Amino acid sequence: MSKKNICVTLQYDGSRYDGWQKQGNTDNTIQGRLETMLGKLFEQEIEVNGSGRTDAGVHAVGQVANFQVDTPYGPGKILELMNTYLPKDIAVTDAKIVDARFHARLNAKSKTYRYRLSTGFVRPVFGRQQILWIPEDLDLGRMREAAALLTGEHDFTSFCGNKHMKKSCVRRITSIEIEEVTTTCGDTEYDEIWLTYTGNGFLQNMVRILTGTLLEVGRGEREPAEMTAILEAKDRERAGAMAPAHGLTLWKVEY
Amino acid sequence: MSKKNICVTLQYDGSRYDGWQKQGNTDNTIQGRLETMLGKLFEQEIEVNGSGRTDAGVHAVGQVANFQVDTPYGPGKILELMNTYLPKDIAVTDAKIVDARFHARLNAKSKTYRYRLSTGFVRPVFGRQQILWIPEDLDLGRMREAAALLTGEHDFTSFCGNKHMKKSCVRRITSIEIEEVTTTCGDTEYDEIWLTYTGNGFLQNMVRILTGTLLEVGRGEREPAEMTAILEAKDRERAGAMAPAHGLTLWKVEY
Repeated sequence: MSKKNICVTLQYDGSRYDGWQKQGNTDNTIQGRLETMLGKLFEQEIEVNGSGRTDAGVHAVGQVANFQVDTPYGPGKILELMNTYLPKDIAVTDAKIVDARFHARLNAKSKTYRYRLSTGFVRPVFGRQQILWIPEDLDLGRMREAAALLTGEHDFTSFCGNKHMKKSCVRRITSIEIEEVTTTCGDTEYDEIWLTYTGNGFLQNMVRILTGTLLEVGRGEREPAEMTAILEAKDRERAGAMAPAHGLTLWKVEY
Repeated sequence: MSKKNICVTLQYDGSRYDGWQKQGNTDNTIQGRLETMLGKLFEQEIEVNGSGRTDAGVHAVGQVANFQVDTPYGPGKILELMNTYLPKDIAVTDAKIVDARFHARLNAKSKTYRYRLSTGFVRPVFGRQQILWIPEDLDLGRMREAAALLTGEHDFTSFCGNKHMKKSCVRRITSIEIEEVTTTCGDTEYDEIWLTYTGNGFLQNMVRILTGTLLEVGRGEREPAEMTAILEAKDRERAGAMAPAHGLTLWKVEY
C-alpha cells in the first residue's frame, strides 16, 4: 500500500512549549509531540513538515503541516484519533489527503501572523497568555506610517534574529494592518490593538522585531521615516527590541 | 482618620485556586490572596467580603467585594496598587469608595452566572480553561422547557451540594437563558452554548447541578417535566450530576 500524504491544520497554545521545531532528544516542541504521538498511533516513523517554525511561546490558530503515513484510515478518522491523543493545548482543526508532492513548507505562498496588544488601564485576565499588555498611549498614525515603509519586498537582515543567517533575507510583506479592536468580558471592555502581518515568508524572530520596532515608533521613541534607513543598514542593532513571544499567533497559511 | 469602605470589581481565572473562601492557614484562595496582599500593602489587617463564594476552579469576570481600610489613597490609586501586587490571573477592574454600611454579600440583589459549553467537533484550544467541551447534539428546545420549570421561587434543596445545609434553600431564579453563540478563532468557528442564570442567590454548587441536570435533559436522558418532581422531592439524589467547575463564571453582581 502506498502512503497517504495528510495535510492538517493545527491550533496550539504555545505557552508551555519550546516552539515548533524538534530539538534533538527533547520532546517539548510541537513538532516533537506530534511525531511521537503519530509514531505510536500508526506504529511507524513519521516526519511532520510544518509550514514554518514558530518560536517558543508563540501560538497558532492556523498552522499547517503534512506527513506521509501508511494507513487505511481516512482524514476524518485521523483527525479524531490525533485529537484523542494530543494534549489539550494542541488540536487538529482540519485534515485532508493531499497530492503526494505537497509539502507544507515548500508550497506555502503566504503566511499571516497576528500580534495582539492590550493597551487598557486594566490587565486582561482571560487571554493574558495570548496578549501583550502595555497600558500606554500608542500613536497608531505614526505606527501605520512606519508599517507602510516596511511593506513590500526588502532585505530584512535588520529584522532577523539569527545573526548567522547565510541565506537571503529578502522577503515580501504584502500588508501590515494595524487595527483597534474592542473586546468585552462581562462589563469590562478591553482595548486591543492587532498588528496583522501577511507576507511570503518571515525570518527568525522577524515579526517580533518588527512589532518591537513599531511599538518604539508608537511611543515616540523613533520616527516612522527611520524605517528606510534601518532596512538599508542590514544591521540587527539598528532595529528595535524584540517584542515578547506570547503576544504572537500564526494566524493563517495560504497555498 | 476613619476607615474608607472600598468596593472593588474583580476578574479572576479560577483554574489554579481553591475557590473564593479562605480556608484556615492555606492561602490558595482568592479571598486569602487578596487579604494577604492588602495586609502587606496597607500594613493593617484587612477582611475582604465577597458577594459570595465561588467553587474551586470557577472563574469571575464581575465578582464584587468590599473591605474597610485606613488609607489616604483614593480608589484609582488603590486599584493601581492592587493590580501591581496581584498575580496575573486576578485583576481589579473597578474600585470606588462606598457608604460605610455597604456590604458586598448582604446588599447583593442579584447575581448572574454563565456556564459555557462548546459542542463543536474540535476541542477549543484557546479558552479551554473556561469552556466545557462536549461534542454532542443537545436538544436546546427540551433544555429551555426544563429551564422554564426551574425559573421562579423554589426550594432548591435538590440542587444544593451541601447536604448539611441548615438554612432555607428557597431562592428565586429570575431567568435561565440558553443561547447559541458562534465564536471565531482564525478560520475555525466554535459553536458555543451559553447557559446564563440570574437570581437573588445561589446555593453551594447549585449552578453546576442545574447545568448538569439540564445537560441530561438535552441529551434525552431525562424529560423536561421531571424538573417539577425533582424540586418537590427536596432530595439531592433526584437531580443530575454536577457539571465541572471550569465551565462556570460569575458574570455580574447587582446591588
